[in-house]
Amino acid sequence: MPIDQRRPREIRADIRAGHISGVTAGLGPGYVQANLAALPRDQAYDFLLFCQRNPRPCPLLEVTDVGAVEPVGVAPGADLRTDIPRYRIYRSGVVVDETTDATRYWRDDLVAFLLGCSFTFEWALLEAGVQLRHIEQGRNVAMWRTSIPCRPAGIFHGQMVVSMRPIPASLLARAVTASARFPGAHGAPIHIGDPAAIGIRDLDQPDWGDAQEFKPGDVPVFWACGVTPQAAALASKPPLMITHSPGHMFLTDIPNSTLAAL
Amino acid sequence: MPIDQRRPREIRADIRAGHISGVTAGLGPGYVQANLAALPRDQAYDFLLFCQRNPRPCPLLEVTDVGAVEPVGVAPGADLRTDIPRYRIYRSGVVVDETTDATRYWRDDLVAFLLGCSFTFEWALLEAGVQLRHIEQGRNVAMWRTSIPCRPAGIFHGQMVVSMRPIPASLLARAVTASARFPGAHGAPIHIGDPAAIGIRDLDQPDWGDAQEFKPGDVPVFWACGVTPQAAALASKPPLMITHSPGHMFLTDIPNSTLAAL
Repeated sequence: MPIDQRRPREIRADIRAGHISGVTAGLGPGYVQANLAALPRDQAYDFLLFCQRNPRPCPLLEVTDVGAVEPVGVAPGADLRTDIPRYRIYRSGVVVDETTDATRYWRDDLVAFLLGCSFTFEWALLEAGVQLRHIEQGRNVAMWRTSIPCRPAGIFHGQMVVSMRPIPASLLARAVTASARFPGAHGAPIHIGDPAAIGIRDLDQPDWGDAQEFKPGDVPVFWACGVTPQAAALASKPPLMITHSPGHMFLTDIPNSTLAAL
Repeated sequence: MPIDQRRPREIRADIRAGHISGVTAGLGPGYVQANLAALPRDQAYDFLLFCQRNPRPCPLLEVTDVGAVEPVGVAPGADLRTDIPRYRIYRSGVVVDETTDATRYWRDDLVAFLLGCSFTFEWALLEAGVQLRHIEQGRNVAMWRTSIPCRPAGIFHGQMVVSMRPIPASLLARAVTASARFPGAHGAPIHIGDPAAIGIRDLDQPDWGDAQEFKPGDVPVFWACGVTPQAAALASKPPLMITHSPGHMFLTDIPNSTLAAL
């Protein structure tokens, strides 16, 4: 994948100006990228509580003040209405638009939630010498809805969604310790091995993303996935919800290393 | 201090029946004890956001559903109105009662927040061989309001409150690593050494608790303190707030080890 070594702030300016509208993998290497979910204030308390009760799939990095478009904690000066390459607009749980500028949909009562994403722990895995098959093969990871219930909060409920990566057995322990250091990016695996134990029937048929190729000795390793909160939010059919489009993340100014647990 | 080795569930039953009304140090060793702050639903969103934005002083263990008195996540079967030895009742930021049974003050719109407390990391320090002067001397720790601002959230704002323990220089590193494992109980120190650097003028004059005796070679070590959210909440003068009385904590059923970071 192409690497854009500039600082996130410069890249966001290009996104805002409409010069970048593609996926963000490879942009601003070393910096945390985030999922966006913006919801009306009326739904925000339940969503915040859902994230607090389910921190593994929903690692909160930033919650804006009501109506604020600047995520002051992770990207001062940014504008969440324009600085993501592509947005999805949902009304009552249904996609009504996909756009590169969410300004005309934004409302004064929206609260924006930014959540950690797998890019950070994948970086940690690669740094630790754990190769990732889907990156080698230029594919997306495989994702499933599991049988593991999230702890509900108000109107939000649902099963945990996981992503799966094939890991050589000899590197399992390293994959656990390397990702566990980053609780702000889903942390350690939630399951290793038998897919049936968490309600996954067929590793060749993911619910989202691409099937993965296993090499001899590879073990399936499952991490909590940021699709979880989005799926739970959509199931509750909020009147308005604005998210990033899959793969089109928000680039923060904080280095991956700042998400490391002490 | 006397040790009550029974399980928290049995001790809570004695508290509920009125047989125990004192401080909870030494009760149910090995299990997490928690701070209580119960607030009306109207203030709960801002308080939840304040805790999310300030996790070191405000490590959330449990947030009940609106009106629920059972903290199902950490103590199934418990009743937060009766199972704490002593409560303080605040109206508009002023103590109006201290009681062993909060039932008559509880309202259907209250949300109860349980936050981790220093007992867990003090246990971790002792297990790691770090002696604690205030325990040896039968005193309370020393606490100060610092110059470190919390990140505000809605109506809640304030400076971080810290507790201080004198630690021998040779054990500083061990004190850091032992407490850092427990982010759910304030985690690693937020400052080591010079009190003036965080706005503390006189180590002999704590804002709360007892002055500590230093032995030669001891260094002052400061941890974020659960007084922070309570002070921030009271400063906003909520119409009703119910807390535990200092030292009279809620006993959960979860072992200290479950708060260890992965």
